[in-house]
Amino acid sequence: MPINILFAAKPERWVTYEAPLRAALADVGISANLGTDIAPEEVDYIVYAPNSSVQDFTPYTRAKAVLNLWAGVEDVVGNKTLTQPLARMVDDGLSQGMVEWVTGHTLRHHLSIDTYIHGQDGVWRTNTPPLAYDRPVTMLGLGELGTACAQALTRLGFPVTGWSRSEKSIEGVTCLHGADGLRRALSTAEIVVLLLPLTSETENLLNAETLALLPRGAIILNPGRGPLIDDDALLAALDSGQIGHATLDVFRTEPLPKDHPYWAHPKVTVTPHCASETRPGTASRVIAENIRRGEAGEPFVHLVDRGSGY
Amino acid sequence: MPINILFAAKPERWVTYEAPLRAALADVGISANLGTDIAPEEVDYIVYAPNSSVQDFTPYTRAKAVLNLWAGVEDVVGNKTLTQPLARMVDDGLSQGMVEWVTGHTLRHHLSIDTYIHGQDGVWRTNTPPLAYDRPVTMLGLGELGTACAQALTRLGFPVTGWSRSEKSIEGVTCLHGADGLRRALSTAEIVVLLLPLTSETENLLNAETLALLPRGAIILNPGRGPLIDDDALLAALDSGQIGHATLDVFRTEPLPKDHPYWAHPKVTVTPHCASETRPGTASRVIAENIRRGEAGEPFVHLVDRGSGY
Repeated sequence: MPINILFAAKPERWVTYEAPLRAALADVGISANLGTDIAPEEVDYIVYAPNSSVQDFTPYTRAKAVLNLWAGVEDVVGNKTLTQPLARMVDDGLSQGMVEWVTGHTLRHHLSIDTYIHGQDGVWRTNTPPLAYDRPVTMLGLGELGTACAQALTRLGFPVTGWSRSEKSIEGVTCLHGADGLRRALSTAEIVVLLLPLTSETENLLNAETLALLPRGAIILNPGRGPLIDDDALLAALDSGQIGHATLDVFRTEPLPKDHPYWAHPKVTVTPHCASETRPGTASRVIAENIRRGEAGEPFVHLVDRGSGY
Repeated sequence: MPINILFAAKPERWVTYEAPLRAALADVGISANLGTDIAPEEVDYIVYAPNSSVQDFTPYTRAKAVLNLWAGVEDVVGNKTLTQPLARMVDDGLSQGMVEWVTGHTLRHHLSIDTYIHGQDGVWRTNTPPLAYDRPVTMLGLGELGTACAQALTRLGFPVTGWSRSEKSIEGVTCLHGADGLRRALSTAEIVVLLLPLTSETENLLNAETLALLPRGAIILNPGRGPLIDDDALLAALDSGQIGHATLDVFRTEPLPKDHPYWAHPKVTVTPHCASETRPGTASRVIAENIRRGEAGEPFVHLVDRGSGY
């Protein structure tokens, strides 16, 4: 008997996901009734985007799992009606896109590329940047994405310090944790990358106090979550020169409102939440694999720990 | 008896090189009289920059080698008075700097970073770039620098095709050679990097005919040598849209004259020959090692083949 898989996301997502999902399910031998309109009590799996119209999971009495299309789960993990197992998206394409964005913007700031893009004024300024060996980078967050980015930057020669809530060990990366570790990680960072999950403990992690711990003129890259930064504190630190530049891909409100001061600030670059997008081809294979596991009685992968919130 | 080492380069280079050279010579146990003013017939080694005042090597009758401070030798290799062995600079720092510049500008164009730097107009444009896997890059030149850059781009996920005059083999890189190989290497390249030596065969390698072989809108990065490109042909290809953008670090005349059309062209980024600079610390160690070899009767490393011109 085919299983029933509900695709619960914005309609435009269905257009891009239907074909790759059907192909990925066929590849793992799952015969499925896949659609956007299935009676709740008949749904076996929910492929889910937190901005979909499904916000009450109570009627989905037989659903074995909710398979998130997004890496971030903060908009669903607190949903009290969700009693089914919840899996995050861990997609090769997601990680690859993040590594490209983080490496590209780290090198952009390291090499002062903006000065050449803005300054085509006929003046030949010889000004050799230090080598990557002499440009310390700090990665806040050492989950799947933070670890992949830390490793890519290490391979390029940057000395990378990583910080995470719990103790971690990554070859070639100086790993710190806890409150004292955070102070040390920030104190040396010429470039800071934020790839922490958003929890009550990480909200406003970069605030007036922690921004002041950075070396003067440090660069902030935030491809993680908007609320990790206290926006007013960042704007003040940019204006005072404590922070040299911020390149931000995520915001408390998205799209970033047209009148937000970040848009007009000369030391801020706004990118439109493009650092890491789930790609239908690779993401569909991750979802199909978890459904295959569920049907085979094997444990799901990428399950969210409700206690820690990610 | 101390050996006599002439430092023949611009005076400002002596300021930056004297201390690291003395330290590197001491490290390999060489007792030397190092200076900028030594009677030619008493000089044992010449540490050399092709733009120095020494252009006639005839009086240096006992010099055992000319040790170039630059990676490029095209301004000295044709000097008919040079009969001594000539060694190129092969410096870790040189290679590292080149990898950083090439990787940084490749990612800049791949991620369309310029559009975010120029376009902070409050409009949220969602536009996910392809992953590196789907962005073919072609490296023209597979010497020390070209190989290091091809490997770095391969590690980031870009499919890299390399082209060289003679046949080469590099893991993970599609290596082509010869005239037919050049046509194939150009036909797929969304980004082309020029890291060829300058010889009579490579001058104007990118011209109207070869630029037309590229996919429409291709990006050119030239951190190699200015005369590899026919400038008029490139400007015409930029104006027609055949080439999407050119980021150029090297030019026929440097500094690039203020009235050169490259400065004002909206599709050209000029960088001031900063992609790869010899660093005094690492370069001094390379030179000291060759002098140690000469004194120990061991063969010199990095010798230039006068026949091929590099």
